[in-house]
This record gives sequence, C-alpha cells and structure tokens, in this order.
Amino acid sequence: MSPWVRTIFGKIEGEVKVSVAVVGASGAVGREVVGLLERYDQVDLRVFGSERSAGTTLPWRGGDIAIELLTESDLSANNLVFMTATSELSSLFARKTASFGNYVIDNSSCFRMDPNVPLVIPEINFESIKTGDRLIANPNCCTIILLMAVAPLRKLGGIKRIIVSTYQSASGAGREAMDELEQSTKAALEGKEFEPTVLPHPYAFNLFSHNTPIDDSGYNGEETKIIAETRKILSDSEIGVNPTCIRVPILRAHSESITVEFEDFAPDEEAVRRVLRDFPGVRVVDDRDGNHFPMPVEASGQADVLVGRIRRDPSNPRAVSMFACGDQLLKGAALNAVQIADRLLGFS
Amino acid sequence: MSPWVRTIFGKIEGEVKVSVAVVGASGAVGREVVGLLERYDQVDLRVFGSERSAGTTLPWRGGDIAIELLTESDLSANNLVFMTATSELSSLFARKTASFGNYVIDNSSCFRMDPNVPLVIPEINFESIKTGDRLIANPNCCTIILLMAVAPLRKLGGIKRIIVSTYQSASGAGREAMDELEQSTKAALEGKEFEPTVLPHPYAFNLFSHNTPIDDSGYNGEETKIIAETRKILSDSEIGVNPTCIRVPILRAHSESITVEFEDFAPDEEAVRRVLRDFPGVRVVDDRDGNHFPMPVEASGQADVLVGRIRRDPSNPRAVSMFACGDQLLKGAALNAVQIADRLLGFS
Repeated sequence: MSPWVRTIFGKIEGEVKVSVAVVGASGAVGREVVGLLERYDQVDLRVFGSERSAGTTLPWRGGDIAIELLTESDLSANNLVFMTATSELSSLFARKTASFGNYVIDNSSCFRMDPNVPLVIPEINFESIKTGDRLIANPNCCTIILLMAVAPLRKLGGIKRIIVSTYQSASGAGREAMDELEQSTKAALEGKEFEPTVLPHPYAFNLFSHNTPIDDSGYNGEETKIIAETRKILSDSEIGVNPTCIRVPILRAHSESITVEFEDFAPDEEAVRRVLRDFPGVRVVDDRDGNHFPMPVEASGQADVLVGRIRRDPSNPRAVSMFACGDQLLKGAALNAVQIADRLLGFS
Repeated sequence: MSPWVRTIFGKIEGEVKVSVAVVGASGAVGREVVGLLERYDQVDLRVFGSERSAGTTLPWRGGDIAIELLTESDLSANNLVFMTATSELSSLFARKTASFGNYVIDNSSCFRMDPNVPLVIPEINFESIKTGDRLIANPNCCTIILLMAVAPLRKLGGIKRIIVSTYQSASGAGREAMDELEQSTKAALEGKEFEPTVLPHPYAFNLFSHNTPIDDSGYNGEETKIIAETRKILSDSEIGVNPTCIRVPILRAHSESITVEFEDFAPDEEAVRRVLRDFPGVRVVDDRDGNHFPMPVEASGQADVLVGRIRRDPSNPRAVSMFACGDQLLKGAALNAVQIADRLLGFS
C-alpha cells in the first residue's frame, strides 16, 4: 500500500459491513478506487467489468478479487456503488441504482450538469448534498485540480475570472492511452515507426489540443466541462472561465497554469499562500530560492494538489497567477469519489 | 538538406563573396545557422567553437568544415558574424567586432535590452534597424514565437494585455538538455534510475517551471525577458504581459497558450485568421472538425510558426485566445538570425 493512503485514511475500523460495488473496476480509475477501499474494514466489495475483463482478478487485501460481469440486479443490493465505466453505462444504471436507496458516486460526465444531482468536491461544496440525495456526480479531473487551487482564494475576495491552460496527462484518456504514451515513446527512442490507435495524434515527445469535439464557440468538450462545472461547484453562474486544454506526454498527473482575476484588488502573495496552506487537500510548493514548484513527478501518487508559482500578475492589478499539479487518477477522480463516500457514509 | 530550407530561400546565387563567421558553431543553434547558410553561394564560411569542439568538423556543402578555436582577431575580418555561444562570449566580442563595420547578429541576451541595439523579428520590426547599426540582437525564442502570433493582430485593434503559458522544449537549454531528455526517458521506460546533470529536475515524463532564477516579483528570468522584449519589439512600453514559462518533455518546438486582450472589443475569429494568414512566417492550423491544431511534431523542422485554436474568450469580450507552435531552434533562434542577416545584406 502506498504511504499516502495511510496519510489520508489511517486504519478505518467498523462494526457494520457496507456492501460496496465498483463498476469498471479494471479501468485506470476503477483500480484506484479499489486500492483506496482496501483500507476500510467495513467494505464488503464486489467488482464489475465488461466482458473483456470479467473473470480476471484485482489485488484485494493481500489476495485477489474476481471481476464479475455486470447485470442490473447486481447493483440494486449494494449500499454504495462507484460508477467508473462509461457515460453510457452510467446513464443505464446510475439513477435506477440510486432509486433503491443506494449511494451512487458517478465518475462519468453523464449527470454532472443535472440540476438535481450534486457535483461535489468535498473540501469545497460537500454541503450541496441534500438529505435524501443518493446520486452524486464526481467532477472532471481538470475542474477538481483547478478548483482545489482557486476555491480557497474566495476567502480573500470575490473572483471574477479564471484563465487556465492545462498540461494534461495520458491517464485522463485511460490505461490504454498511458500504454500508448510509453510504447510510442519507446519506439521513437529506437527510431521506429508507431501508429497511434488510442489517441488521434502522435504522443511521443509531442503535445496536442485535447481531442474532444470542438463546438461553435471554438471550445472543446473538456473545456466546456471546466466552464460549466466550475460555475456549478462554486455556485456562481457569472464567473468567467477561459480554459485551454492540452495533452502533454506525462503519465498520470495534470498541471495547470492559472490566472485568477478578483472583483476588486488582488490579495498579496503571502495571503494567498496562507489560505492555500490552511485548505485541506492542498500543499503549497513555492520555493523560489530553490526553484522548486509543483511537478507531475512529485504530484503522482499523492493525495494533495500541489500549488506554487504564486505571484501578482504584472499585467493586471486585480489578478494573481499560480501553477498547480494533482494526480489525475487520485484527487482528479478516484480519491475525490472515495472522499465523497467516506463523508456520506460517516466512515471516518 | 531539409525541404523547408528550399521553401524559404530557394537557391541563392551571388557574385560577391561574403565572409561569414559562426561563433558557437557546434551548439544546437550554431549548427542550425550553419545549415541555413549552406544555401547561400555568397557565403565564405568560418566556424568557431570552444576548446572542446575546436578541431571537430561540421557538414558543409557536401563535405566538412573544421571548427576553429576563436581568437579576437579572427572576427574582425568577417563581414557578418553570428554569435551563438554564451552571453559572456558575446559581451567580450560582439561590440568590438561590430565596431570594425562588420554586421554582428547576437543570439545571446547580452544586448537585447540595450537601447542602442535593435532587437529584431524581421517580419515585425525590421525597420527598427537604423543606417549604421552593425550589432543586432536576436530575441528570446519564446518572445519570437509569441509575437509572430500576436503582432499581426495589431491590425485589428490596439493590444492591451497578453497572458501566455509556455510549453517549452529541451532545445532551449541546448543540445545537452535534448540528450538528457532522451536518455532519462529511456531509463524511465527501462525502470532504471537516472540522475539529471544538465537540468535541475527529472525530465522524463515530467515538466517543471523554467529553471532561471526567480526575482522578487515572482517571475523567472525567461518570463522577465518575454515581458521586456515584447515591449521593446512592439515599441509599446505600456503593454501588459503575464507569462508562465514551463519546460515540457518535448525535443525542439515550443508551444504557447496565448490570450490577447484588446483595448476595445475583440475582433471576430475569421478576422484573426485572415491577418494571420496574410502574415509572412505564420501558418494557420485551425481545423476544428478534424481536431487538428498546432503540434510540436508538425512545427519541428519548419520555418513557419503554426497558429490555431483561434477563438473568442468567453470570460472577456475584449479578448481572443490562440495556441501557437514554432521550432525553437529555427524561427526561435537560427532562422530569425539568418533572416535578419539576409535582409541586412540584401542577399535575396
């Protein structure tokens, strides 16, 4: 078990068993959810996957757990269900499963913008979950990492506009994209040809605009998610967001270059560092003398979102800039989902 | 010879021989300058390097040319000198060499902010070179790529502010950094340890804030160069610039995510595309349906700066955003220097 799991959860003991299902357990996010759940004594786990993965196993509490093929009835008897497969599967199963009184934490984009479904980053808006809510949406990975850096700053003044350029890792496109990055890079170093099959562009020593469709406004699907989800999570339909989403040849941590414009004047740097240091789930990495700031190699496998390069914007007296890194599979996905469940079920 | 050289220069014929020297010829930029000069029949070349490279050879017109150890007198007899070594060497030799009436194109940062030295991107401010000027400074690579995308937009309205996040390649730190990126990536893929010696942070599947020192404002040396050089090249001491400079694991092309705020209203996208298409040295790559935008693999080895993702900024009615890629060693350095010389000496 990686040390950060202990840091977050410690050893969780519980008398009452909770029946938990992970759907899409063999995927990049599903595996991380299973790994995080290992620490909870209460969890009585079943894992589900597609026909391709059914019958294979995942490591579980020193042994193995077999991935089962999903049928609808399998989910109705679980107290807690993590949906980490496709939006299509979520649209088929999530609402019905929740209607039986089970908690469903949905990692897909299927219900995120549904006004009746809370979209939650626990440190920021856990209180948006109302009594009786059973279906909870887990935000987009870039949105989570962005808002972990930005939301704490609201203590210092109203925020008017966010400009963000992302440096997104392969993991956001799944395990196959991570494999393609490694394999294509190996081929490039050996001077061999490589035909990408997972992503639409060469990935070895290359970067490209996020490969979701572009709408008439010129923004791709990833960017429009960031805009809409930011407004919903911050309960601020007016806040301006200008994202540029770029995939870089990094394995599993996203980075983001962020400029925040306040309504009035920008707070001083030390005030920004202070509210970030006080915020759970954020670690300030801002060593100017040592030229040490957030980096994917240091964010990978970590629970915290790293934030640094905190400084006033010389081009606007109301703005500050920052650079953030977070593990896309953990706080960007699996960890945030498990944290929602942890608080909902009063585990720890 | 790579095809783009033909595209730019065609075959250059000339009666009068011009004595040309390249100082730092074995470096990443120096080699590119030598490669570009091959096409000029007029050029009578000498190449100089440090004790480490003196005696080795570079390819030249189908044969080889030997790198000589530099002494001061070697430079005084050349009509045209490219300084592509260190700032220290430029400070020792550049001004004196120019004082003999020779043209000196200096690629270092040594003289860029000297009010008596023109800082030139030929497509943008060639006219800043006055009669009698002999020492010309070549701008920082990020500045060149940024302004090739931004300067054409001045036709559409006054520009108030530029926010730019860079995705910078290894080549900006020299050949050794390119080697370190390749070697450390190979080690990472083989699961081996690698101790970086050229750059201060791991580079394999990692990115990090530019490793120049940070000043009291919180900006690093690369960023303060972009701010100051942009103001000088655009002759606009008021223009706001907020850069974030990040090194990504890419070999030789820089990318930049750019937001431009106009004084009044933002132009429409098609007007932006039109002025960019009309600008020499820029190629618009902005295929929304095909999800095809500027990428390092397509910018590498090319003369043009690629610009795309052109769109209105939904968070500010006065702003547009773009994404640009350019070959750091070519338009970002060697090609810009050779273009300055080409126009100065009336070669083509």
